[in-house]
Amino acid sequence: MSKKITKRSENYSKWYNELVVKADLAENSAVRGMMVIKPYGYAIWEKMQAELDRMFKETGHQNAYFPLFVPKSLFEAEEKNAKGFAKECAIVTHYRLETDPDNEGKLRVDPKAKLEEELIVRPTSEAIIWKTYKGWIQSYRDLPLLINQWANVVRWEMRTRLFLRTAEFLWQEGHTAHATSEEALIEAKQMHDIYATFLKDFMAIPVIKGEKTENERFAGAISTFTVEALMQDGKALQAGTSHFLGQNFAKAFDVKFTTKEGKQEHVWATSWGVTTRLIGALVMTHSDDNGLVLPPNLAPIQVVIVPIHRNEEQLNAISEVADDLTKKLRAVGVSVKYDNRTTHKPGFKFAEYELKGVPLRIAIGPRDIENGTVELARRDTLSKDYIKQNEVTTIVVDLLKEIQETLYTKALNFRDTHITEVNSFEEFKKVLENKGGFISAHWDGTVETEKEIKKLTKASIRCVALDVKQEEGVCILTGKPSSKRVLFAKAY
Amino acid sequence: MSKKITKRSENYSKWYNELVVKADLAENSAVRGMMVIKPYGYAIWEKMQAELDRMFKETGHQNAYFPLFVPKSLFEAEEKNAKGFAKECAIVTHYRLETDPDNEGKLRVDPKAKLEEELIVRPTSEAIIWKTYKGWIQSYRDLPLLINQWANVVRWEMRTRLFLRTAEFLWQEGHTAHATSEEALIEAKQMHDIYATFLKDFMAIPVIKGEKTENERFAGAISTFTVEALMQDGKALQAGTSHFLGQNFAKAFDVKFTTKEGKQEHVWATSWGVTTRLIGALVMTHSDDNGLVLPPNLAPIQVVIVPIHRNEEQLNAISEVADDLTKKLRAVGVSVKYDNRTTHKPGFKFAEYELKGVPLRIAIGPRDIENGTVELARRDTLSKDYIKQNEVTTIVVDLLKEIQETLYTKALNFRDTHITEVNSFEEFKKVLENKGGFISAHWDGTVETEKEIKKLTKASIRCVALDVKQEEGVCILTGKPSSKRVLFAKAY
Repeated sequence: MSKKITKRSENYSKWYNELVVKADLAENSAVRGMMVIKPYGYAIWEKMQAELDRMFKETGHQNAYFPLFVPKSLFEAEEKNAKGFAKECAIVTHYRLETDPDNEGKLRVDPKAKLEEELIVRPTSEAIIWKTYKGWIQSYRDLPLLINQWANVVRWEMRTRLFLRTAEFLWQEGHTAHATSEEALIEAKQMHDIYATFLKDFMAIPVIKGEKTENERFAGAISTFTVEALMQDGKALQAGTSHFLGQNFAKAFDVKFTTKEGKQEHVWATSWGVTTRLIGALVMTHSDDNGLVLPPNLAPIQVVIVPIHRNEEQLNAISEVADDLTKKLRAVGVSVKYDNRTTHKPGFKFAEYELKGVPLRIAIGPRDIENGTVELARRDTLSKDYIKQNEVTTIVVDLLKEIQETLYTKALNFRDTHITEVNSFEEFKKVLENKGGFISAHWDGTVETEKEIKKLTKASIRCVALDVKQEEGVCILTGKPSSKRVLFAKAY
Repeated sequence: MSKKITKRSENYSKWYNELVVKADLAENSAVRGMMVIKPYGYAIWEKMQAELDRMFKETGHQNAYFPLFVPKSLFEAEEKNAKGFAKECAIVTHYRLETDPDNEGKLRVDPKAKLEEELIVRPTSEAIIWKTYKGWIQSYRDLPLLINQWANVVRWEMRTRLFLRTAEFLWQEGHTAHATSEEALIEAKQMHDIYATFLKDFMAIPVIKGEKTENERFAGAISTFTVEALMQDGKALQAGTSHFLGQNFAKAFDVKFTTKEGKQEHVWATSWGVTTRLIGALVMTHSDDNGLVLPPNLAPIQVVIVPIHRNEEQLNAISEVADDLTKKLRAVGVSVKYDNRTTHKPGFKFAEYELKGVPLRIAIGPRDIENGTVELARRDTLSKDYIKQNEVTTIVVDLLKEIQETLYTKALNFRDTHITEVNSFEEFKKVLENKGGFISAHWDGTVETEKEIKKLTKASIRCVALDVKQEEGVCILTGKPSSKRVLFAKAY
């Protein structure tokens, strides 16, 4: 199979693009900047959805669905938010096509079917949701309102990359309403924690939990909490954000409630989301030059069984063992695929599942039938071993746990050795170019300096870590005083 | 609580509209013709999705995701399909807003950001999917391709009603590709069967399985199989369709494959879908003048427990029993809600859960604590009974099954007594006006006659039932010969 991919050391970016396509995760579509998520990639998204949805519901959230379109007048009601998204909005202006009289068999936009008010395809749903919440919230008894939506959104990005930045993407967006500022802040932090936990326990990705600077904040938010991951090329990736919105949207849409004491007050809000870009983060954190490496907790197929045979008689004997193993593994919750296709050779299959990052591969040949063994191969370490058939279930269950932990530890080590403290701008630039990763440095706290550093180096402030310690210092660019370090990095 | 709804006998249509809103299923949004699906309504959709998704996967289908937008040139490639949807398309023409210089704080469409080619918001995805399949299918080894998508679609309907007909709706759309006509036809029929089974086993709705006439067929299909349900007002509702598309889309998008014998042939296609309108069908089939009646297999809450108490001490004693029952019921897979809110009285709660169609209600008062009993009430029959606490689990499990069956049987009886054979146009009109339901009548097989009957009576041919028997007769309108009866009805 001609599925060899570029090496990471040669061209990391090319490696990623090729891998996503060749491992059948996604591909570019006929629509500029929009992707097709292929079944294998979508199966990973479904696994992510299932876990996140469970975590949201366990914390009292319910799902709902709001319209795809936002009338322009609603969209612009919260000015900062509107301004933040105005430059990347897809806009519906007409509602009908007609036969083109000059072009047989072709259609054209019917000029008579022009909308009185343009509709924005949602880039995010605060506007339409807060317009709706106005009807749902009257009294403190209606609060908190804890709602999540699984949906598609459109942001007309000029430069797109599969999963990482696409004109349409899938996501979940939570939108909650609360009686007090404190309660809303607790909610925003709770969801921030849930994202960090999900990334750690399921994606095997360590994150830095922090807060965005004013310049990097969500348009319309008071605080934006972020989980920042580090990719193998030393660039950071914002993996999820949770926003404390204060009363901005409640004021823009006039959403008030009667307190227990009978007063009228604006409600307090949060919103939070993760997107299909998480799949990009997953690929870039763990995979290698041979292809994907998937953490068992999100792998659509955890174990693949491949028969090695010369004739039908051998295949029958192998299939008997394979079917038995499949049954036993499924009984303990392991997802197994027995690939008994006779149209493809074992070598082709080995390469395919290696490329697709299936955590464990079991190969069974005629000699294994004689010996009561199977060959078990790990995708992450590429190590192989012969084990007894009657020990497969126990060993597989243990190994899947071990692989999950190994991947996390490896990523954590990489991340921890790629946080570098610097104390001068020269040092900053040197580390950024030669080593990459997060750079911990003092900054004077102004938007101007932040923008100037980004202009000079392409590095942005990823976050102020929540566990940052107070420390006197001077800004690496301006020499002005600073009370704590922030984390810079080039980012996706 | 002022949630009294109009009686069905007074105004069935008003009853439906009020019920959907008051039972918190959905409401109209700020966008013309688009609805907000509220948490309780969305929870029903999630239950439907889970079962359908399982049934699709058990028959070998995989989920994937394709773009929301379809470039106009692709959209018009399959001419019949394009023509069928052209009049109800939302069209994206621009990709940016800019500050309105004449209106402070407002935005306007940036005329410089006009798209070279307009994008259609998908009303259905055959075009974009078949454009993609061209890249996925080369050989017979790539077939069959069995893919489903859960997505939102937009059809610019002029007259909309919550769930039944909305400008945006949620659905699943299956799109499969096959090597032979026979195999595609078997697939289309298999999905038709799955829909009928789902409606019967989960929605407790009996359907007539049939085939659409040419005039009512999906635009671009060779055959459209439909499941037709009957609502309590005697109108039919198309609940799901499965299309055999022949080679129409393969030809429009030039999708060929190499056969085992090395020949190049166009592939064969099916598509099939059900939508959030199923929730409308569910409401209209089972509910009554007191509110929703939900079949246990799709009810978000199957059992609600309401405490009846005068003081905290009583509530504590009741809560102990309620918590124990909740635990036991959940252990056997029953979804339970214990509503211990002290902000609302029992009477309010009784009315609320009646309105929301929770199949079983358990009330526990101080005397029940003394006697070791609970009061158990059925939503469908409104009957009540005292039962022993230690028998609750067994009785609830049995009753949920019984209610599911009772609802189906009741709907089946109603449907079966509302299929009327007629042999003249006078009789046809009389039955249609006085009794409603399906009318089984001879028809001459022409589109003209079908359209004329619809014009005169508003009744359309719902389908030719798959189990129709051959029978000589004459068309009720034209007197021309006919070899079998078809089913007419007014429809949603």
